[in-house]
Amino acid sequence: MKRRYAILAPGHFAHDAKTAHGVIAYSSDETVAVIDPAGAGKRVRDVVSHLDSDLPIVASVAEALQYAPSALLIGTAPIGGGLPTAWRAEILAAIAAKLEIVSGLHDQLADDSEFKLAAQRAGTKIWDVREPPEVPLFSGAVYNVTTPTLLLVGNDCAVGKMTVALELCRAAERAGMRAAFVPTGQTGIMIAGWGISVDRVIADFAPGAAETLVLYAAQSKPDLIVVEGQGAINHPAYAPVTLALMYGAAPDTLVLVVDPARERVSGFNTPTLHYRELIRVHEALLATVKPARTVGIALNTRSLDEAQARAEIARARGETGLPADDVVRYGPDALYAEIALELNVKGKPCGG
Amino acid sequence: MKRRYAILAPGHFAHDAKTAHGVIAYSSDETVAVIDPAGAGKRVRDVVSHLDSDLPIVASVAEALQYAPSALLIGTAPIGGGLPTAWRAEILAAIAAKLEIVSGLHDQLADDSEFKLAAQRAGTKIWDVREPPEVPLFSGAVYNVTTPTLLLVGNDCAVGKMTVALELCRAAERAGMRAAFVPTGQTGIMIAGWGISVDRVIADFAPGAAETLVLYAAQSKPDLIVVEGQGAINHPAYAPVTLALMYGAAPDTLVLVVDPARERVSGFNTPTLHYRELIRVHEALLATVKPARTVGIALNTRSLDEAQARAEIARARGETGLPADDVVRYGPDALYAEIALELNVKGKPCGG
Repeated sequence: MKRRYAILAPGHFAHDAKTAHGVIAYSSDETVAVIDPAGAGKRVRDVVSHLDSDLPIVASVAEALQYAPSALLIGTAPIGGGLPTAWRAEILAAIAAKLEIVSGLHDQLADDSEFKLAAQRAGTKIWDVREPPEVPLFSGAVYNVTTPTLLLVGNDCAVGKMTVALELCRAAERAGMRAAFVPTGQTGIMIAGWGISVDRVIADFAPGAAETLVLYAAQSKPDLIVVEGQGAINHPAYAPVTLALMYGAAPDTLVLVVDPARERVSGFNTPTLHYRELIRVHEALLATVKPARTVGIALNTRSLDEAQARAEIARARGETGLPADDVVRYGPDALYAEIALELNVKGKPCGG
Repeated sequence: MKRRYAILAPGHFAHDAKTAHGVIAYSSDETVAVIDPAGAGKRVRDVVSHLDSDLPIVASVAEALQYAPSALLIGTAPIGGGLPTAWRAEILAAIAAKLEIVSGLHDQLADDSEFKLAAQRAGTKIWDVREPPEVPLFSGAVYNVTTPTLLLVGNDCAVGKMTVALELCRAAERAGMRAAFVPTGQTGIMIAGWGISVDRVIADFAPGAAETLVLYAAQSKPDLIVVEGQGAINHPAYAPVTLALMYGAAPDTLVLVVDPARERVSGFNTPTLHYRELIRVHEALLATVKPARTVGIALNTRSLDEAQARAEIARARGETGLPADDVVRYGPDALYAEIALELNVKGKPCGG
């Protein structure tokens, strides 16, 4: 059953609520209201124009109840460490109204004794999406999945891998394919309503988490599985999670997601890799376990003007000979059309 | 202060106690007795000839106390899932005698209410070595370590990376260098008396765990840091931990540990990589973050006869142009002498 979300983002919605914006734009669950006193009385499009949504912004959970939400989504963290009293009161009001609580906060709400007791009494649930379930070790069962599988990889973290995955799924659906988006991080999980934060899994089990996600997605027998990527293969802190997805999801094809404005990976002096290096490093690693081919490049040209964006896309095509585009700026259909034939190919593991 | 270990291995010591054998052979802590009723009255060398040790084997903790141990080490798991009654009684006897309990068991002994209460009353500690401490995210502070750092990498898990690391440290010490062994897994931790099981750390924090270990080892200002490796870069389940050590420990040099009898990585059909592929894959990845050079190959020729072993070592040298030897079969001094000059070089991170 689909959720009907009220999104809690007091003082945050307009400027600092990436998860809320992602859920409104992409979730198959429905959002019925946004709770932010700073924008109360307005519509979502009045404060976040690119969303172009008529959703109401209200001041409180009590006001949001008129839109009959089934869940309260907390996708943005309050400023500072702890949970402010005002947020606590709103969460308790939602629990009392029997709303499910879906939280991406760092602190686990289900471990908070007041929330836990209130949820027990109300007979509702608290889902801390960052907290992974127990997963098995990687088994190789993913090699028996017959659905072609695409993984997004990038030149850095936070370059738009999730957005590209979602846009390519939309384009695939428009082209008559059934595409399954596989969420591997907090925002993706909130958008899809399921998934595992692979970066929160114990290191030895991270490939098993990726495998579990792909096996689950394959159960609904889609035509294509699209796995949200994480980190970057040369990010000194986050590359192990990137590699866990590469080996654990066992993709057949890769799409690079590149923000050409990133000269260094986030937080470090490590230079980002250029198009051809990215292709070589990822394909060389996968060639040792289960080969995958890079079939396209999705650029994030947000920091470029129109002429610069077109020039960079042309450069990416020229340097690699691969289809390239910005799927947010120009829509995903053109890139999808160019790579569609390549996606529909199932590969085998080495030695398999 | 050094520990004085009594090692608990009922029914296991002769055949199935890799950790116990490693601690006796390599630990800077002292072992004073082995507890195994199956061998009681004998000496260690009577049942494990390659250890050549005069240590007594006794039937119980009560008998071991005459050798004044300060800690009980449990390095081998009982057969089957739970902890048998006989083991529980021995552990409780050790706690009552105020011995520290050092356990590599999967189940945490410190979480067992009976052991916990007994330890509180006796005023002693329970150390579950598999359980990692909280570690920070990778910060790059390791790039400021001025001690040359060597990492062991291999063609599979369980090929002898820890043993090679320990043997190279011994050879370095004999050559007048102060070498610091950095333990990254359970047996290494028990041998060194400190360390982190990096495979048990949450994936996002695994490089931070490796960095923390190297920063700690550097505090004693050794001439050389030797980091125990884990897994293999093309092992579909364990490669993320391998990569976490590669980026997190930020080595200057690599030594390959290769068991030439392994045609597939443990548990999977994935073919193992050959000498030149291993060098290329590891160096190509590290070149994107902090370059490191492969300086030698340590072969594990246990499965080969003398002529085969010499032929394989010659083949490794011929194919790579690098020093190669079996440091267990022929001792580590010759290989160490060949690579010593190369080890003493400190590299810089990319963009640093």
